[in-house]
Amino acid sequence: MTLIDEHAHAWTPGEARARFRSGVSGATAGTAAGHTQANLISVPADWAYDMLLFCQRNPKPCPVLDVTDAGSWTTPLAADADLRTDLPRYRVWEHGELVAEPTDVADVWRDDLVSFLIGCSFTFEWALTGAGVPMRHIEQGRNVSMYVTSRRCRPAGRLRGPMVVSMRPVPPEQLAAAIRESSLLPAVHGSPVHCGDPSGLGIADLSRPDFGDPVDAEPGDIPVFWACGVTPQAAVMASRPPFAITHAPGQMFVTDARDEQYRVA
Amino acid sequence: MTLIDEHAHAWTPGEARARFRSGVSGATAGTAAGHTQANLISVPADWAYDMLLFCQRNPKPCPVLDVTDAGSWTTPLAADADLRTDLPRYRVWEHGELVAEPTDVADVWRDDLVSFLIGCSFTFEWALTGAGVPMRHIEQGRNVSMYVTSRRCRPAGRLRGPMVVSMRPVPPEQLAAAIRESSLLPAVHGSPVHCGDPSGLGIADLSRPDFGDPVDAEPGDIPVFWACGVTPQAAVMASRPPFAITHAPGQMFVTDARDEQYRVA
Repeated sequence: MTLIDEHAHAWTPGEARARFRSGVSGATAGTAAGHTQANLISVPADWAYDMLLFCQRNPKPCPVLDVTDAGSWTTPLAADADLRTDLPRYRVWEHGELVAEPTDVADVWRDDLVSFLIGCSFTFEWALTGAGVPMRHIEQGRNVSMYVTSRRCRPAGRLRGPMVVSMRPVPPEQLAAAIRESSLLPAVHGSPVHCGDPSGLGIADLSRPDFGDPVDAEPGDIPVFWACGVTPQAAVMASRPPFAITHAPGQMFVTDARDEQYRVA
Repeated sequence: MTLIDEHAHAWTPGEARARFRSGVSGATAGTAAGHTQANLISVPADWAYDMLLFCQRNPKPCPVLDVTDAGSWTTPLAADADLRTDLPRYRVWEHGELVAEPTDVADVWRDDLVSFLIGCSFTFEWALTGAGVPMRHIEQGRNVSMYVTSRRCRPAGRLRGPMVVSMRPVPPEQLAAAIRESSLLPAVHGSPVHCGDPSGLGIADLSRPDFGDPVDAEPGDIPVFWACGVTPQAAVMASRPPFAITHAPGQMFVTDARDEQYRVA
């Protein structure tokens, strides 16, 4: 899958959401530069406590930016947005099985859905870019590479599953900046969970990501792994709640919030 | 109320908990130096989602360090601890009214209680001390001053209430260090919510705190206000759940965790 549009970085968040509402889809890495992107997971109210506790117990993959009231499709993170239509593409799940990947979910929405907006690593890419760290996937016009790992999340109620990570190849001379800058953004995954040998996370082959696109590394690049907001989606696959809606990996909700506001210092 | 013991800073967390279990009580500022202290709030499982959502929506006063399963009195933050006996003093609440302040709660424990351990500003005092910021209340052998403010928390379900803050007088030349060091500890309240004129938070008289002790400032000191983990207790008073147990203000749960682990960089 390619990025949505070569000019997407200059869109305002509202322009981006309007395009997605009209049916445009694609990976949002770099879209509406400087504005916070979020993962979406909507579950029936009966599962909301388990999901919120799962997020609290696994804050690196699941940093919660907002939780809606049951049935609501609005969020203070984007005043005029409709969570049912304003993402590029969704995934609809029944009993842990993917049943559809539509560009809006108004027709399958339920009054008992509680929606979780979870921090996305696209949010710290501005900080890494500003510190001189190249973003290989954006340079190559691709979605970031994501992998299911052998690390288990701490379970919560009925929810369990593996941690999912995103990977960016980083030149050794920029490794310190990449770690430092992402550490200052704990609300959007924070510091990496692993650097170097992918087998440490049970990843056999970097060229075959579980989600997103393969990304070409330059000679000498070190693979750096950050906890990823697709993790709740993996928990849905593993734990099989009767119904759930998520974003499609890499096709995020673009908020009006500014990335800087999540920086701790 | 005075601090527990002039040698309490040198106790191990296990020694501190053993003393509290045997009935010793008092303010724990400075106890088991370098180890993380936590606020306790236990509510019936029926109220747990509202409380967890309240914490998520108000992360500065209510940073969650751990949530137990219903009925459990154990936590990974202190492997051998019993949450029913190991705090210096508790408060027991019925319908928002304080009904008892015992030194253990084993006799009123319920199988449906979910316990929240919430970060405490005592945790960043080591970092401030290390950066040269004087801790006036510890020097004076007193509990920190805490105030109910005019700022409202964002409600969640049936829970609402004011933000509570702790205040430390800081010399102007140490203000930058106090802000910088606490900012790097967002899991334990993070940066101050206000500095200077207390009327900005609706506080009429610094010498009359709502919880804890008055603390003497030195000439020129600036009052610096951090969000406080007594906030959920104020929400209990305002929202009147049928039953709740909390710590007594300033008499915290001493964990085995080390303060450094909550530092982001």
